[in-house]
Amino acid sequence: MNALLQLGQDILQNQSFSQLLGTQLDRFEPGQAVLSLVIRDELKQQHGFLHGGVVSYLADNALTYAGGSVLGDSLTVEYKINYLRPAIGERLIARASVLSAGKRQAVCQCEVFALANGEEKRVAVAQGTIRKAGQ
Amino acid sequence: MNALLQLGQDILQNQSFSQLLGTQLDRFEPGQAVLSLVIRDELKQQHGFLHGGVVSYLADNALTYAGGSVLGDSLTVEYKINYLRPAIGERLIARASVLSAGKRQAVCQCEVFALANGEEKRVAVAQGTIRKAGQ
Amino acid sequence: MNALLQLGQDILQNQSFSQLLGTQLDRFEPGQAVLSLVIRDELKQQHGFLHGGVVSYLADNALTYAGGSVLGDSLTVEYKINYLRPAIGERLIARASVLSAGKRQAVCQCEVFALANGEEKRVAVAQGTIRKAGQ
Amino acid sequence: MNALLQLGQDILQNQSFSQLLGTQLDRFEPGQAVLSLVIRDELKQQHGFLHGGVVSYLADNALTYAGGSVLGDSLTVEYKINYLRPAIGERLIARASVLSAGKRQAVCQCEVFALANGEEKRVAVAQGTIRKAGQ
Repeated sequence: MNALLQLGQDILQNQSFSQLLGTQLDRFEPGQAVLSLVIRDELKQQHGFLHGGVVSYLADNALTYAGGSVLGDSLTVEYKINYLRPAIGERLIARASVLSAGKRQAVCQCEVFALANGEEKRVAVAQGTIRKAGQ
Repeated sequence: MNALLQLGQDILQNQSFSQLLGTQLDRFEPGQAVLSLVIRDELKQQHGFLHGGVVSYLADNALTYAGGSVLGDSLTVEYKINYLRPAIGERLIARASVLSAGKRQAVCQCEVFALANGEEKRVAVAQGTIRKAGQ
Repeated sequence: MNALLQLGQDILQNQSFSQLLGTQLDRFEPGQAVLSLVIRDELKQQHGFLHGGVVSYLADNALTYAGGSVLGDSLTVEYKINYLRPAIGERLIARASVLSAGKRQAVCQCEVFALANGEEKRVAVAQGTIRKAGQ
Repeated sequence: MNALLQLGQDILQNQSFSQLLGTQLDRFEPGQAVLSLVIRDELKQQHGFLHGGVVSYLADNALTYAGGSVLGDSLTVEYKINYLRPAIGERLIARASVLSAGKRQAVCQCEVFALANGEEKRVAVAQGTIRKAGQ
């Protein structure tokens, strides 16, 4: 495992909320990050779909990781998400990438997919601004 | 307790994810909704603040409830959130209201506050579109 | 006229695009800005309403002015707008205010109104991030 | 020229504001639209760059066209834009595409580029919701 991925996973281990949700960091390299989690009953809403709050959490966290991959320790300043369809299946996967980065801030986009029966469907898209911590 | 608030709380009881986070519906009337939760260690990130994903979950859910108060069973189409400061304290409170509503959709805004030592500080603002379910 | 309003109007005079659209700065004080323009045929779309691009231009510019009122020379980093109804009438008015400001950035909100027959109707709401220029 | 492109150009001819800005529709096919305009002094701000309002107008209009390519006569419900760098050069180009579409609404993304000395630079990215008119 490369050092950046190891560092990213260590940070994730220290996010209690990410541990509660069962999030894992699948990929972490300059300009890109992939996070995923298992869709389990505890994370659902009243219609049996994954709760939107889980989808936006994973998008938000993936945006922060993507920005952090080029800025270092970072936080999300703001983001916007469009839900495209209900998230159904076994696994939720968020893939984020950096569109543009300066010294202090980066603009990132993220696509979120639900994996069901081996097929991925895009369930949400997000776009946001990430800032280097302490700035 | 009025019937609308009771209905809203029943729905929240059926959101497993909201139960996992300990969310409660404090107010629910036509055009407005207030949700809150206790800030506990399990919901934090690596710097000891409440995880941003919890803040956006509560904002998202409050937006949906506000829209649902005038549209009936509803879902969030999209929203945008700006984080203003770290959420520190005992309780997180999201207050959402309807700005404009048609038959199928409503535009809502939400302010999120952290309550610490009896004082509320605004930690995030959100704006989004809510759609009647099945439309 | 106070010095801040005079400064703001001088800047507006140097925005060729704002001159083309006929924008005026009605109010400019720490934390707040109001911009307006006359709704004329040249600014409309194919259904006879004011073009959405004019509404978002005025919202964007009002957000920048509001942020600039506390940060100095500034630019819009990002914003989001929800259109609420068609803009019809004689005048378009954008009122923006600062929700939160640090040294380099501010989060601002804006409401846009159309004035028709002496009555104002809210036609759009926007929320965005403003950054001090050169940062 | 195909019929869809001709229809799109006729609509653009009827948008007085688009005529004022000199916008042209370069491409219009199911799921995609490209709009562009010449960067001229009249469209600039006080630092000599293209005014952000022109960038967001073109993004907004391209999003509406993309959505309209699958929905028919449409309007923008909401959108969000991140500015990436100042728009400098001879021409501004907005390329939008549909990410997801139902009967009444579509979610679209748009990238805006400035063409300078034969080279395109991405100056903004936008994401929004388009709705069929009359719905």
